[in-house]
Amino acid sequence: MSSPEEQAFRLLTEYSNGFMVSQVLFAACELGVFDLLAEAPEPLGAAAVAARLGTSSHGTELLLDTCVSLKLLQVETKTGKALYQNTELSSTYLVRASPKCQGNMLRYLARTTYLCWGHLTQAVRDGRNQYLEAFGVPSDQLFSAIYRSEDERLLFMRGLQDVWSVSGRPVLGAFDLSPFPLICDIRRFGGSWVTMWPSTPAGALAARISRPPVTFRVRLFPGCSGALAKECTSLYPACRVAVFDTPEVVQTAEKHFSFPEAARISFCEGDFFKDPLPEADLYLLARVLHDWTDERCSRLLARIHRACKPGGGVLVVESLLAADGRGPLTAQLYSLNMLVQTEGRERTPAQYRALLAAAGFRHVQCRRTGGLYDAILATR
Amino acid sequence: MSSPEEQAFRLLTEYSNGFMVSQVLFAACELGVFDLLAEAPEPLGAAAVAARLGTSSHGTELLLDTCVSLKLLQVETKTGKALYQNTELSSTYLVRASPKCQGNMLRYLARTTYLCWGHLTQAVRDGRNQYLEAFGVPSDQLFSAIYRSEDERLLFMRGLQDVWSVSGRPVLGAFDLSPFPLICDIRRFGGSWVTMWPSTPAGALAARISRPPVTFRVRLFPGCSGALAKECTSLYPACRVAVFDTPEVVQTAEKHFSFPEAARISFCEGDFFKDPLPEADLYLLARVLHDWTDERCSRLLARIHRACKPGGGVLVVESLLAADGRGPLTAQLYSLNMLVQTEGRERTPAQYRALLAAAGFRHVQCRRTGGLYDAILATR
Repeated sequence: MSSPEEQAFRLLTEYSNGFMVSQVLFAACELGVFDLLAEAPEPLGAAAVAARLGTSSHGTELLLDTCVSLKLLQVETKTGKALYQNTELSSTYLVRASPKCQGNMLRYLARTTYLCWGHLTQAVRDGRNQYLEAFGVPSDQLFSAIYRSEDERLLFMRGLQDVWSVSGRPVLGAFDLSPFPLICDIRRFGGSWVTMWPSTPAGALAARISRPPVTFRVRLFPGCSGALAKECTSLYPACRVAVFDTPEVVQTAEKHFSFPEAARISFCEGDFFKDPLPEADLYLLARVLHDWTDERCSRLLARIHRACKPGGGVLVVESLLAADGRGPLTAQLYSLNMLVQTEGRERTPAQYRALLAAAGFRHVQCRRTGGLYDAILATR
Repeated sequence: MSSPEEQAFRLLTEYSNGFMVSQVLFAACELGVFDLLAEAPEPLGAAAVAARLGTSSHGTELLLDTCVSLKLLQVETKTGKALYQNTELSSTYLVRASPKCQGNMLRYLARTTYLCWGHLTQAVRDGRNQYLEAFGVPSDQLFSAIYRSEDERLLFMRGLQDVWSVSGRPVLGAFDLSPFPLICDIRRFGGSWVTMWPSTPAGALAARISRPPVTFRVRLFPGCSGALAKECTSLYPACRVAVFDTPEVVQTAEKHFSFPEAARISFCEGDFFKDPLPEADLYLLARVLHDWTDERCSRLLARIHRACKPGGGVLVVESLLAADGRGPLTAQLYSLNMLVQTEGRERTPAQYRALLAAAGFRHVQCRRTGGLYDAILATR
């Protein structure tokens, strides 16, 4: 048993090596280790993995064995040969074919977020994001910076898809949203409103449910929050969901995503700071407010309140900080992530209550889900 | 009670956020948070910390509270005001004035290692380090790359000092080295041998010990392994330690470090691959072999064996991998670190035994210390 001083040193080492653990995960995803092992008919040796991925034998063996220590892979030795296969963790979250795969979000973290965090010291000094320093892109054009190329935009859209594939159901199930038949999923991006409706009526699904048939307004592009819209219609089959985004995002979506549920699909383009908000019973703001200053949040919430019918409301989905701001660690890290990447921050329940109350909302309820994201429901 | 799937997702999140935790630690060190709190006569509020460090108020408060969650700081609320102070962990390992401060090593990790690890995927593909990609410095000049500027060299030297201030005693105490009165600490750097002796005789210390007076050969520059030499002479007061390094390192040391024990100090410059090795009873290779290929290690060990007297030996200090190479995690991460930064790797006891046996050493003993570094003693 080690002394408290040795235990403290071990903890310090764990923190200082944290970036190495992240990169092991990122590299194994990027190289396609988990996909290869998922597709192989039987467990593979390190040499076979290296041969099929075109990677160095020493680097591959070391990466695989480190993944074993991290429980990302499991190994068994047969006739002296080590054979690797996925664990439950990697099968569920790291294999492309899994509906809960987080590969795009991890790739986004590796390519963009990791680099921004290399400037955390300066971000704390300046109190502002470090896009200019990390990528040579001015930070006042926030989402122009995040969406600085189509590849980057596509990756970020797919990454959000990954997020909601896991966290969508807990946040949408935190409150009974069935009293809100028309839900408007307000995304974060600028542009002008263009409402488009599908030519095919949504009768097929509508016929299956008890509520009167309505035009289903479902997210067009699963890149951003298709998974969230999907969970929403799955949990609340009577609801309609409309989603809004920039022309660039829509174009990227049309080019890269396909829509098996095309009949239930519509989308709009718009800028929630300028354009009239469409009619809805519930406005959904998922990972939106955390991007912005209090002042901008207030402006957006006031616009939503004006558009909102009596009895309607807004569902805010964010990582909630503890009442005193000192936890949970994940929400604190995400708040620092907002510092290095956006204009915003994560907030405490009291901070959201204050913003919502100032905008005119009356009944504010916060629900922690125990997952990465929590839910706040406020009604007019 | 969460499901296994939720637990797996939590673990995945911990891994993917690992780099954020590292950067919180690095940024708090770089900004001087722990030094400020150590020097302040009483706990400070976030506003006072921000004012004294010249940092943003929001960023500072968030950083401090995240440090609290990581047990790097503690907070107490007095009359509604949160006041921060160091924990045992930060007082011992993160405050500049502490003899065990790891600040330089953390700074080196933040500035150099973090960036190299951004290229881990490519390093696994290529099976070689990514200095060229990370810094535009060719990797065939390994230590020219690591020592690409005097600042970088100085930081690395100070970082090694930090390492041995904690890990020196366990590795040097793993075996009784008292049978080896003359220890030669062979460093990793190229150059030509120049032996320099202090003008002051080492009589003062020699008089205190039972062995016959000898010229003490103690590391001149604490930047590299001054701490290791210090631990060595502290644990084994009869021993003499000679340390060898490149002219550049020596010059940096002379310029930046002072030596209260100047009377016991000497140093040499040399290239262990080319120049004659000085006479010694024990050759110390601490974090040297892990930098090099098996072929280069064999060449170096064969040279040491030829220089070694019968009954003399070599003490290899490295992070030992488990027999099957699948752990401990820290040694695996360090081996990947060698992949992205050097020509070498961490090795298993059997791999070290094979290298040592091939060089002619007979009695090879491995001792795990439970710390970051282990010890292997081999005698001729």
